[in-house]
Amino acid sequence: MIHVGIVGATGYTGVELCRLLQQHPEVSGFTLYSMQYAGKSFSEVYPQFINKIDTILEQFNPDAVSADIDVLFLAIPHASSHVYLDKLSAFKDLKIIDLSADFRLDSAADFERYYGVKHQNPDLLGTIAYGIPELYYDDIQGSDIVSNPGCYATSVILGLQPLVKAGLIQGPYIVDAKSGVSGAGRKAKESSLYCEISESFSAYATGKHRHRAEIDMAVGEPVFFSPHLVPMSRGILSSIYVQKKEGVSVKDLKDCLNKAYENKPFVNLMDDSITPDTKYVSGTNNCMLSIRAEDNNNTVVIFSAIDNLIKGAAGQAIQNMNIMCNFEETTGLGHIAMYV
Amino acid sequence: MIHVGIVGATGYTGVELCRLLQQHPEVSGFTLYSMQYAGKSFSEVYPQFINKIDTILEQFNPDAVSADIDVLFLAIPHASSHVYLDKLSAFKDLKIIDLSADFRLDSAADFERYYGVKHQNPDLLGTIAYGIPELYYDDIQGSDIVSNPGCYATSVILGLQPLVKAGLIQGPYIVDAKSGVSGAGRKAKESSLYCEISESFSAYATGKHRHRAEIDMAVGEPVFFSPHLVPMSRGILSSIYVQKKEGVSVKDLKDCLNKAYENKPFVNLMDDSITPDTKYVSGTNNCMLSIRAEDNNNTVVIFSAIDNLIKGAAGQAIQNMNIMCNFEETTGLGHIAMYV
Amino acid sequence: MIHVGIVGATGYTGVELCRLLQQHPEVSGFTLYSMQYAGKSFSEVYPQFINKIDTILEQFNPDAVSADIDVLFLAIPHASSHVYLDKLSAFKDLKIIDLSADFRLDSAADFERYYGVKHQNPDLLGTIAYGIPELYYDDIQGSDIVSNPGCYATSVILGLQPLVKAGLIQGPYIVDAKSGVSGAGRKAKESSLYCEISESFSAYATGKHRHRAEIDMAVGEPVFFSPHLVPMSRGILSSIYVQKKEGVSVKDLKDCLNKAYENKPFVNLMDDSITPDTKYVSGTNNCMLSIRAEDNNNTVVIFSAIDNLIKGAAGQAIQNMNIMCNFEETTGLGHIAMYV
Amino acid sequence: MIHVGIVGATGYTGVELCRLLQQHPEVSGFTLYSMQYAGKSFSEVYPQFINKIDTILEQFNPDAVSADIDVLFLAIPHASSHVYLDKLSAFKDLKIIDLSADFRLDSAADFERYYGVKHQNPDLLGTIAYGIPELYYDDIQGSDIVSNPGCYATSVILGLQPLVKAGLIQGPYIVDAKSGVSGAGRKAKESSLYCEISESFSAYATGKHRHRAEIDMAVGEPVFFSPHLVPMSRGILSSIYVQKKEGVSVKDLKDCLNKAYENKPFVNLMDDSITPDTKYVSGTNNCMLSIRAEDNNNTVVIFSAIDNLIKGAAGQAIQNMNIMCNFEETTGLGHIAMYV
Repeated sequence: MIHVGIVGATGYTGVELCRLLQQHPEVSGFTLYSMQYAGKSFSEVYPQFINKIDTILEQFNPDAVSADIDVLFLAIPHASSHVYLDKLSAFKDLKIIDLSADFRLDSAADFERYYGVKHQNPDLLGTIAYGIPELYYDDIQGSDIVSNPGCYATSVILGLQPLVKAGLIQGPYIVDAKSGVSGAGRKAKESSLYCEISESFSAYATGKHRHRAEIDMAVGEPVFFSPHLVPMSRGILSSIYVQKKEGVSVKDLKDCLNKAYENKPFVNLMDDSITPDTKYVSGTNNCMLSIRAEDNNNTVVIFSAIDNLIKGAAGQAIQNMNIMCNFEETTGLGHIAMYV
Repeated sequence: MIHVGIVGATGYTGVELCRLLQQHPEVSGFTLYSMQYAGKSFSEVYPQFINKIDTILEQFNPDAVSADIDVLFLAIPHASSHVYLDKLSAFKDLKIIDLSADFRLDSAADFERYYGVKHQNPDLLGTIAYGIPELYYDDIQGSDIVSNPGCYATSVILGLQPLVKAGLIQGPYIVDAKSGVSGAGRKAKESSLYCEISESFSAYATGKHRHRAEIDMAVGEPVFFSPHLVPMSRGILSSIYVQKKEGVSVKDLKDCLNKAYENKPFVNLMDDSITPDTKYVSGTNNCMLSIRAEDNNNTVVIFSAIDNLIKGAAGQAIQNMNIMCNFEETTGLGHIAMYV
Repeated sequence: MIHVGIVGATGYTGVELCRLLQQHPEVSGFTLYSMQYAGKSFSEVYPQFINKIDTILEQFNPDAVSADIDVLFLAIPHASSHVYLDKLSAFKDLKIIDLSADFRLDSAADFERYYGVKHQNPDLLGTIAYGIPELYYDDIQGSDIVSNPGCYATSVILGLQPLVKAGLIQGPYIVDAKSGVSGAGRKAKESSLYCEISESFSAYATGKHRHRAEIDMAVGEPVFFSPHLVPMSRGILSSIYVQKKEGVSVKDLKDCLNKAYENKPFVNLMDDSITPDTKYVSGTNNCMLSIRAEDNNNTVVIFSAIDNLIKGAAGQAIQNMNIMCNFEETTGLGHIAMYV
Repeated sequence: MIHVGIVGATGYTGVELCRLLQQHPEVSGFTLYSMQYAGKSFSEVYPQFINKIDTILEQFNPDAVSADIDVLFLAIPHASSHVYLDKLSAFKDLKIIDLSADFRLDSAADFERYYGVKHQNPDLLGTIAYGIPELYYDDIQGSDIVSNPGCYATSVILGLQPLVKAGLIQGPYIVDAKSGVSGAGRKAKESSLYCEISESFSAYATGKHRHRAEIDMAVGEPVFFSPHLVPMSRGILSSIYVQKKEGVSVKDLKDCLNKAYENKPFVNLMDDSITPDTKYVSGTNNCMLSIRAEDNNNTVVIFSAIDNLIKGAAGQAIQNMNIMCNFEETTGLGHIAMYV
């Protein structure tokens, strides 16, 4: 049994970590940190946790992490942990899963270009596992620190990387991605208000979104990345358009993905009879892939559906924790999507 | 370990039963019935169950219930089970939880008045436990058949019955209830279309809704029942307006409810600091009660929030099953609401 | 033709005033004020106005209102105009419609109790017309300043005042009101975020909402006022529960309302066949009233549906403008609700 | 002044035609047809039309069109008008706007392939104007019959045709289109229920959607067409991915679109500062185009936003009517989008 710490416990990813870990059979206790709500009990802020997690929220101090904590989750915005991760990594026997963006990229220059901040721990870059277990299991298993990937990036890389690696497809690589609003976090801002979002669909940050750097790094090809905002809370559907290479069939592509995810419980290529829909993965750690093509056309689309807060954040973080702690990879993550 | 059968497995309540029971530690297998989809596998209809419940759907025949089945759930519309429940009750060792309305009322006349159909098994009426465990535990524990209450009725009775029984309040009893759309089921009809519901709020069946009969029966007082439709999928909030009797304080009312639900894990009276909100019970078997009053005014409102598909249907049915089978009452029902 | 000024043009009520007035046949020009966006063009902030209203937004100065302006709308939060309305009223020939709450109540003490601020122009209180034209037409017609009522208050007073005045009903008066989220304005705050509102229904400010003071003043009876938040952008449905007096029939109540609104184009009592639904008034200046009762029960409910941003704010303000300027009362306000 | 007839007046497109035409200054009367509701008054079915359009709905008979009618709108499903359009075209002085798909394509073979029905009036195919006024104004002006385009097709053709014609771009042409649910019409079917749509985003009919045939015909290049369903009622955003030809700049593309729509009041290329969003065109006949590109990448995306029920159906039909009747093209179509 382990005791977990969560920095940023009252953000949308933080509260999702609490919900999932409260029901994780290997987790015995919580230390929760929140800048905004320190001093209050967690269940005062989120009443659905009454009698489940009533812990008092604390201010986080990277110099004094409680010795009780076995695994520490950093559920914080980008440009936070790069300042102090070296301090945390000095704590003995502490496993760290960083859900911020600060250690996802290999290069300090890329970090500065995409996040507008000079990296304070550039020596650590490139030494930390990138936490997509289906693709980097071995890196994760041996690590004390894992960098948890971006939500969009997870959906795209899972659909695209095996096909690129197998040499079956070529560009232009075009990703038209759609996300629910929870991806913007719980920060109070005009653009996330109910009345701004409801009954509208928009494109944003075309060609400029930060997750693009992760995708390019993991896929090894330049991707035209075009995100959109959907009037719903949860879910990502990425529609990934690629060109089949000469002589490659759609069946070849399907075989490639099926083989890549043969023993991977959370990632599945779906039959053509099943609609690509975020509904089927909502509330779960699953990624559903689909392939569609037309006769006489080299363009192929790979659809990748995930729950941005689970496989795109809290769930994948727990999957990484399970691997780092030698628990069964699926422990505490066997949810089935609510249909309604 | 038990094997469960579900008649009407592909309706919204049926699929919710499947989801919850698939993760119930005492359930080992499923026999699923569906008129509309018999012959298909359950996961073909609901792809999120792939590799979890792939059972082939069957036509239900009340004369030939499989001997495998220990507990049979009837997740069917009203005016169905009254025709054949006597046949089912003849199967030895079969426990039955009827989620239809057919055996909720004591009187065949009331059934005919509210449901427009002559009851075919009037002798059984009044012999079957009404399945609100917090109020009728002993009846349920000794029963082989339980009638699962209506969703609105559950929310109202939990908030109102103890106060009426204690003699603390008087009429007029006015219930302004609000429900998400899943209460209307999965039937294709114009009035449940997305474009009809979204961005609109309406009142319907004022003074005529069928659940009113259950409320009057359980509360013992005539209630003015006024339901409304909310543009959301799940959740009921009932706002129950009553008059304090002379000399009764709000604290007396709170004490009464706190005492009534002292050892009841699913029903709680909330502190005044917590907003009555369906969000906190969504996806759970919980009922959150709140009381608000004004100085110098005898009117008091009791708010009662439940998830109509769980505490109002599938969850309460499983709670009844747990009691009937001598499992811990809360088994498989410890969910925490997703915040987003 | 008139030139209008709008203080607070970029709030939700302000933008709705702009939209409606841009198509008003008597309006020839706009001067728009915005604290947040002064210096930008209006169509930069709201691109749907490109080539329609491209005016540059200005800072408002109550000491120097442009002489161009014939009618000035104050679409600002409460506790703003009470500081400077005396200055504005000194401008000759300027007509003012104040959509803030500052001059709605008669009493400085009530203002301070409900809004927590000492009123700076108490002498003006009680001298300014309360702008519900169906009830206070004569006051409005002679006025240079009108105080535009609250959205909830408009819906409740229209349904309740004629029945109370006619002596047909008695208490307890219970108002269970439901509003879309735009009532909270465009201010960035956590509680108005899409993810907080979607798929949830809540009660708030029970017995404490500020509009209650307006209702009590206009109705003359103490009302138990219980507002709720609906996951939609626009619309209010108020369910007003009252008791018929001895010997009064439902027909008497209907006759009373029909007579009260006989020549009032925007307010109509609907036939029993028509569902009380915000959908039918959304985007319009209409108020739809309905009455429902049960046999053998003295409780009667009056449903009142309006669009909170139109009849509850911008539309009623324009209706007041039309009356103050001797235009036809319905000018520019003949919209039909979009069904979808 | 003209009298209009609408076949299919109670579908979503029909009711939108009624709403817009009721406020059209050149329309003096209505004859409305509905299979489902014949015999009822229109305002009984849609109460927001009370006192505005109370006409009794009739059964349509193509052999006996009332001589009162100057312009007849066919707001009916596909595979309806192809059976009888020849009869209608025989009525003297009757102008017809067919909103079904039956006369959009040039070829009977294509019609049969995409719609699964043998065309009954193949001789008329190719003789009827395709009603996108910005591109085919002259054809429309001289016509008595116009075929109103598909909603998706309108959005895509407006964004793509001028660039293809100018020879500035090349394939692969990839259209990732997103639509609100009203595109599926008012038919009661499971897949359009509120609970199926809310909080989910899906892809459907990839590479097989019928509007693809219109696009290919009008654009002259094979397009990979991939539609998606958004949890909202109205609006289409099409994201059209193309490749710049060697030596072509993004400015060249912008210049081309600006020139194509120079004097076209409803179609505008937006500045880069403005987010492509269906919100800005909702409730209007406008089409907002945007272009985004990345340095060092030949891929360019053209975003095209329309309201599927207006520019994609009823509004464009009225625009065609205006042209056919020699009214000002913009008459009755000057709406500004509601922001909330």
